[in-house]
Amino acid sequence: MFGFQVLARDTQSGARLGCLTTPHGVIDTPAFMPVGTRGAIKGVTPRQLAETGAQIMLGNTYHLQVRPGADCVAQLGGLHHFSGWHRPILTDSGGFQVFSLAEINKITDEGVAFQSHFDGAPMWFDPPTSIAIQEQLGADIIMAFDQCQPLPCSAEEVSRAVERTVRWAEQSKQAHQREDQWLFGIVQGGLDVDLRASCARRLIEIGFDGYAVGGLSVGESHEEMIAVLGQVTPMLPADRPRYLMGVGMPRDIVESVKRGIDMFDCVLPTRNGRNAHVFTAGGRLKMRNQQHRLADEPLEDGCDCYTCANFSRGYVRHLFITGEMLGPTLASIHNLRFFQRLMARIRHLLRIGKLETITREYPIAGEPVSGQDIGFTAE
Amino acid sequence: MFGFQVLARDTQSGARLGCLTTPHGVIDTPAFMPVGTRGAIKGVTPRQLAETGAQIMLGNTYHLQVRPGADCVAQLGGLHHFSGWHRPILTDSGGFQVFSLAEINKITDEGVAFQSHFDGAPMWFDPPTSIAIQEQLGADIIMAFDQCQPLPCSAEEVSRAVERTVRWAEQSKQAHQREDQWLFGIVQGGLDVDLRASCARRLIEIGFDGYAVGGLSVGESHEEMIAVLGQVTPMLPADRPRYLMGVGMPRDIVESVKRGIDMFDCVLPTRNGRNAHVFTAGGRLKMRNQQHRLADEPLEDGCDCYTCANFSRGYVRHLFITGEMLGPTLASIHNLRFFQRLMARIRHLLRIGKLETITREYPIAGEPVSGQDIGFTAE
Repeated sequence: MFGFQVLARDTQSGARLGCLTTPHGVIDTPAFMPVGTRGAIKGVTPRQLAETGAQIMLGNTYHLQVRPGADCVAQLGGLHHFSGWHRPILTDSGGFQVFSLAEINKITDEGVAFQSHFDGAPMWFDPPTSIAIQEQLGADIIMAFDQCQPLPCSAEEVSRAVERTVRWAEQSKQAHQREDQWLFGIVQGGLDVDLRASCARRLIEIGFDGYAVGGLSVGESHEEMIAVLGQVTPMLPADRPRYLMGVGMPRDIVESVKRGIDMFDCVLPTRNGRNAHVFTAGGRLKMRNQQHRLADEPLEDGCDCYTCANFSRGYVRHLFITGEMLGPTLASIHNLRFFQRLMARIRHLLRIGKLETITREYPIAGEPVSGQDIGFTAE
Repeated sequence: MFGFQVLARDTQSGARLGCLTTPHGVIDTPAFMPVGTRGAIKGVTPRQLAETGAQIMLGNTYHLQVRPGADCVAQLGGLHHFSGWHRPILTDSGGFQVFSLAEINKITDEGVAFQSHFDGAPMWFDPPTSIAIQEQLGADIIMAFDQCQPLPCSAEEVSRAVERTVRWAEQSKQAHQREDQWLFGIVQGGLDVDLRASCARRLIEIGFDGYAVGGLSVGESHEEMIAVLGQVTPMLPADRPRYLMGVGMPRDIVESVKRGIDMFDCVLPTRNGRNAHVFTAGGRLKMRNQQHRLADEPLEDGCDCYTCANFSRGYVRHLFITGEMLGPTLASIHNLRFFQRLMARIRHLLRIGKLETITREYPIAGEPVSGQDIGFTAE
């Protein structure tokens, strides 16, 4: 039912080409996972999503538990049936959202008491709760409950978060029962490589189906993030998938792939799309700009997405200027396809041993702009 | 390039089955035209629209002239290329919007000076202007510039509006040059059948490719509207298409078909869809209602639309409750398909001579609810 194969390795870097098999289908890696926070990619139908080439969607456990509740999703057939997305799904543990969105009442070694950001309702997450919710949702890949510490923070805070994360990882593994779900552990430790190493070693001792690097892209610079990754990824088992959570911009992705990361997720394609920001290999476009008013060309030359095949920049600008819902939808479809084409190109270049040419083909991947500069976090 | 054929007539009523040929394709009548005010059906792509079975889309001349301007649409290839909708299009004359949305500075026999509802910019519409704009937009069917008088109003006001409408119709015909566009005249006259008759007679003297009934569904009751139609439609040439503008609810459509109307347009499917109101043959559903929370059934049993084929009521409710853009899109797709299925069923029953069974199959068409009751006008 499950498997992960490394099909090729880059000789110049830590990058690898792989294939991840799940009950709902195969994911070619390195892979980009669009974020369907509440079981829906914002403004995009599952069919449109499939046409962008996406092979796996991410759902947010915290948001789905707040509304409509995992019990409701389970009664409506689980997240695949509920959302109409019948390909692989990954759910996060809720840890990141609890620590970034909710009003926290109390964190102890046992778990977190917080108030829903939606209606202030009191909620409680601990490892068994997170795993039970994720089992109700029924994703193919689920995540251990972790404590994600926003940066910057004190060495003591990072250290305490790592201790909790390891303890909770062990409890998550004990709680997990469904055999049709893979469980990934999450390495925390901020920018402290020794803490990261200790966390990784102890997670590997517990043993997970895959390993995620969490707590990056939360305030540090691109260079800091890549430096940490360069040291942490080699510590992770070579035969298990590695997932960098919440990343990122094309440059972040390319550099992380070179450090051995196999999976990414980010809200950028849809969040930027809704705000009229469009990705192209050459750089980003702001579709509200007057310069596009009479432009009959597609958003990106050579792009095969539905938007580029059927509409001009001038029309997309018109939709944004007049507040038509179709503008965000068409820009999101293009951006989602842009990220899938980027990943497909990375995989192709890995296959033929020429990954180093990616920044020539994608000048945007050399852009000194990190996700933080344009203010993205979770959707 | 153009043609209109009546293929069958109902023996029990004035209803007829027809086929309207235009440069961009054929329209089976009675037909329902979804409204793409600014060259986009709100929240729905042209491909999704085509899948609902729509054969023709309506665009609003006034809105398109305000933004992005007909010159811009023309430079971007005309409304078909601009919008990505390559099937037939009809544009209205702008008359209805000028008189309902804009701040009017002055109406004379020559035309209307008004301020754009968007930015207050001074604008001027007269018959040659409306026709020139519609020629730039390039729809298959365009409308004479008319004065649409909101009801209730004095007999004198209605009479003056009819005089202007006839005069402007003549000027519209003189101004119209593109041979790849059909021009329809618009019968005004409020609820005064004598004025309607006089208007119709004089328009027929001028001679148009088709005839619209305007100024209905603007405040009067369903019964008043149907009574006027019952007397006006028989005065129109039997071999020309007849279009009832801005209508309407299923009951309005069914009763108007029986009075000999061939074409309809209305914002109801998309406007109601955006507000979580869903049409079914049995009546309307409010998708935010708690009762749908755990409902795994489709919006409408037996519906073949993308939404009903792939999603549950519970999921659609979840999308509306959480403010996901996909809710309005999925509800609009269903509603658009609902209206197309209703029209297809009307045509089928006309073909087999059993139109009278439509209200048994569609109890909603017997509902004593008119469009006005739920507050729709132009989108």
